[in-house]
Amino acid sequence: MTYTLGIDYGSNAVRIVALDYATGEIVVSASQDYSDGEKGVLLDAHNVHLARQNATDYVDSLCKCFEQLQERAKEKGVDLNHVKSIGVDATGSTPIPVTKDLLPVSALEGFENNLSAKAWMWKDHTSEEEAKAITDVFRENAPEFLKYCGGKYSSEWFWAKILKCLHTDEEVFDKAHTWVEFSDYIPAVLSGVKDADLVKRNVCAAGHKALYVESLGGFPNRELIENIDPRLEKIRAGLPQKLSCADEVIGTLSKEWADRWGLNEDVKIAAGALDAHVGAIGSGVNQETLVKVVGTSSCDIIVGDKNLQDIQGISGIAQDSVIPGFNGIEAGQSAVGDIFKWYVEKHLKQSPAYHGELTEKAAALRPGQSGLIALDWQNGNRNILLDANLTGMILGMSLYTEDHEVYRALLEASAFGALKIIDRLEQSGVGIKKIICSGGIPQKNPLFMQIFADVFNRTIYVSQNDENVAYGAAIIAASTLTDENGQRKSILELQQQYIKESSLVYEPIESNVKLYKELYALYSSLHDAFGSKEENGNMFEIMKKLLEIKKKAKPCTQEVAV
Amino acid sequence: MTYTLGIDYGSNAVRIVALDYATGEIVVSASQDYSDGEKGVLLDAHNVHLARQNATDYVDSLCKCFEQLQERAKEKGVDLNHVKSIGVDATGSTPIPVTKDLLPVSALEGFENNLSAKAWMWKDHTSEEEAKAITDVFRENAPEFLKYCGGKYSSEWFWAKILKCLHTDEEVFDKAHTWVEFSDYIPAVLSGVKDADLVKRNVCAAGHKALYVESLGGFPNRELIENIDPRLEKIRAGLPQKLSCADEVIGTLSKEWADRWGLNEDVKIAAGALDAHVGAIGSGVNQETLVKVVGTSSCDIIVGDKNLQDIQGISGIAQDSVIPGFNGIEAGQSAVGDIFKWYVEKHLKQSPAYHGELTEKAAALRPGQSGLIALDWQNGNRNILLDANLTGMILGMSLYTEDHEVYRALLEASAFGALKIIDRLEQSGVGIKKIICSGGIPQKNPLFMQIFADVFNRTIYVSQNDENVAYGAAIIAASTLTDENGQRKSILELQQQYIKESSLVYEPIESNVKLYKELYALYSSLHDAFGSKEENGNMFEIMKKLLEIKKKAKPCTQEVAV
Repeated sequence: MTYTLGIDYGSNAVRIVALDYATGEIVVSASQDYSDGEKGVLLDAHNVHLARQNATDYVDSLCKCFEQLQERAKEKGVDLNHVKSIGVDATGSTPIPVTKDLLPVSALEGFENNLSAKAWMWKDHTSEEEAKAITDVFRENAPEFLKYCGGKYSSEWFWAKILKCLHTDEEVFDKAHTWVEFSDYIPAVLSGVKDADLVKRNVCAAGHKALYVESLGGFPNRELIENIDPRLEKIRAGLPQKLSCADEVIGTLSKEWADRWGLNEDVKIAAGALDAHVGAIGSGVNQETLVKVVGTSSCDIIVGDKNLQDIQGISGIAQDSVIPGFNGIEAGQSAVGDIFKWYVEKHLKQSPAYHGELTEKAAALRPGQSGLIALDWQNGNRNILLDANLTGMILGMSLYTEDHEVYRALLEASAFGALKIIDRLEQSGVGIKKIICSGGIPQKNPLFMQIFADVFNRTIYVSQNDENVAYGAAIIAASTLTDENGQRKSILELQQQYIKESSLVYEPIESNVKLYKELYALYSSLHDAFGSKEENGNMFEIMKKLLEIKKKAKPCTQEVAV
Repeated sequence: MTYTLGIDYGSNAVRIVALDYATGEIVVSASQDYSDGEKGVLLDAHNVHLARQNATDYVDSLCKCFEQLQERAKEKGVDLNHVKSIGVDATGSTPIPVTKDLLPVSALEGFENNLSAKAWMWKDHTSEEEAKAITDVFRENAPEFLKYCGGKYSSEWFWAKILKCLHTDEEVFDKAHTWVEFSDYIPAVLSGVKDADLVKRNVCAAGHKALYVESLGGFPNRELIENIDPRLEKIRAGLPQKLSCADEVIGTLSKEWADRWGLNEDVKIAAGALDAHVGAIGSGVNQETLVKVVGTSSCDIIVGDKNLQDIQGISGIAQDSVIPGFNGIEAGQSAVGDIFKWYVEKHLKQSPAYHGELTEKAAALRPGQSGLIALDWQNGNRNILLDANLTGMILGMSLYTEDHEVYRALLEASAFGALKIIDRLEQSGVGIKKIICSGGIPQKNPLFMQIFADVFNRTIYVSQNDENVAYGAAIIAASTLTDENGQRKSILELQQQYIKESSLVYEPIESNVKLYKELYALYSSLHDAFGSKEENGNMFEIMKKLLEIKKKAKPCTQEVAV
């Protein structure tokens, strides 16, 4: 009997699954919400862009979660003593300022309530100006780095957040010996690392979020970083040259944790990775298989040839970042479910249950029947415009427009935005033969998935595994072990052995595909005109064409002779 | 003692006021809702553009209304025997198909339930294609006529509606000896006209809605009308050469009505006029005084010099149509209150009371603070684009946008649309020194009026008389009488004598004026790009500038050092 554990740190909770190495089945699992702030997130009433978390909350929640896991394991007769390895994923870029002893700065006296000393959560957007400054430095001095992050550095990422801290709270910056990604912090803690300089950094977070490009010599050099701000050099200087891939063992469980959990000290700890990438592994990502993790935002992951370098407008390409041996490609939309949630809860001021009512009514509409079209930029546009300073738009309202029509237009806009990413990937030489959607929304909203199928004109496979991310972490953990023949299996081999094709499938409906082609052309006009300085487009035709499509789309336009 | 009666036929009710000729005070009044259809309007579930009414409902409601008036007059000791003249206004263009005997076709056996045989209410938009066809004929053959109706014939108007009937219900068309405007029908009925060919046609309805231009020889000639459709000629041929102005006496009260109401047969009946124009008289319209009647839609009335001919994009100029001796100018927005009502009741699905809650919250916002901008085209754009095939738009949403912010953006868009009309009038040589707003919304919504003041950068006077329209009709009636010296007083003289300046005044707030100038520039870019084939404009800057303004507009943007 051999088990592996997958520990998945999401935005609001941690989850652990135990996987049977022989069969790939999950034998027991548990999850635990974070306890601090609002659903685990520390907010600032004066600044909607701020989102922080407590590193201590991460560890405390893990302990509670493991206790639950143990209880359930006992009930099910699963002996966790057979756990041989642990894989960890976490959100990111979520850098944490730490001392030389790997203590979070927020644990120091006087910093307990300082938001700058906390973990700067991935969705913290306070560093917009810093991201711009960093982009400018690289545009001027080393544009080759920007190729790997879609041409623009993001306010969500490592260096921008550290720079923002330097600009707004120098005391915290000074107290920090270095900054460690959440996905590196937990494996280091579990393996008992007490020296921040010895923390193994994973290529997934560093490659996608911190400008680490192996072929360009690793992290940006001293000169480049000092060009941003000389004081940042102390952080750069402490970063390792060589990073860790997902299937690398970075240590074994420390005595402290082994004792606490009643596990053996020889349990291997795999290198950490970002949650979306690990979820993609758990869902079956592969060359020509795109995994779309669709939740509050979307994260689109695919792996490509190692020669692939530059995809304009796509968030990131990083060597070995998803599956070792490939270039990991990450793209995404900065808000998906968040837009629907905004519309229902913030705008309509309805309860979450109202989503169901709206979806039901919206499903009865034909594409284009509402006469509406929307831009899905309520939280900016991550890909392919890389511009946080964009906003949402709804166009085509009459005096008869109802909420379920707007709701459908928002679903459609999100699908159009997703198609922009697919188009860009394919234009850049990334073949896409299969699309697998995972995350909460794909399972909950069949209308949205049918719209995906119709807008993309492709079959959509929906993963029905609720624990894809933790499952992916457990697969990574499994890839560090040797089987009965003494062979290590690769992540790809394990995926093939473990993951069953989903039976939840949406096929495109031809008549919808046709209408959506016309609507997508209009979306593209708006997208280009509002999203790009260079494009103007003919706005006048848009309202006219929407009304034409509306006429066509109506199933019973029969005008009575009056 | 001398009284006059003003009878005002609105969209959903009829109202009568009795005015004391000596003082201009209203001594008694009554109103009566129509009883047929939905609030008096006959609808068609299959066609949202259709809006008809029953001519019999008009007469029945008038009788009920007069009974109420009589009762109240008795209570107040007002002796209606002193009524010496009656003025009538009605909505329009609201043409009614009638027989030679001036019987509505809908009164004939077999036509009782035929919607084509009813009065085609002003807001009936079924005749869009017919309006286009008529515009095309005049563009090609007699473009000089289009100068007087803003360059485009409207689906709301006389000829388009008759042509639509011809296209869709030839039986009704054949049964109709002619079509009579609602505002001509009632004075004819009251004065006992039993021959449709003897109905006096008022210049207000004919000039603004039926292409009557005195300087061009009156109605379009036979050739032009036959160019539209030869079968229309029978209608044209029956129309008089000479039309009636508002202060003209078209007859006296018939014996039948005098007996029914207990009035004398020598009561003078003034020529009819359109409700908005008459409301403008009741509110104090004059040269350089613009009256904006703001309700479900808006109607902007001003009078100008007789030499004034062509104002591109303005619905209509007609000689003597408002105040004899001037050119009457009518413009307007196709939806104002209807947009707010749509948003609250149809989109948010809230009760009408929610307007108050939204207004209160919206009033706490500074201009631009929401980051939103909207186009007020949910019912197309009457002026200055003359295009019913335009739709609404809301731009600038974030994940934090709330309903009261959208509500304010809709109020602002409506004010921007109104300013487009004011700008166009002034550019065309119509000086505007004073703006008086009347109608329900100006009295009910101080925020909207403050936004008017700030967006227009002008003082806004709000008329507090709820009965402006009926009052205007009573003033018209008064202008047909002679005073104790045997002199007739003109409408202008009576206005000066009767109407007191409103004490409800809104002054522009300088800081708001500045912000609205910037926002109006963005509105104009959107307006031109989406509203006109010729303009492209730079859409890219719009979202950016909105975000800049948003930053400026926030009273407490103080970002906490984090």
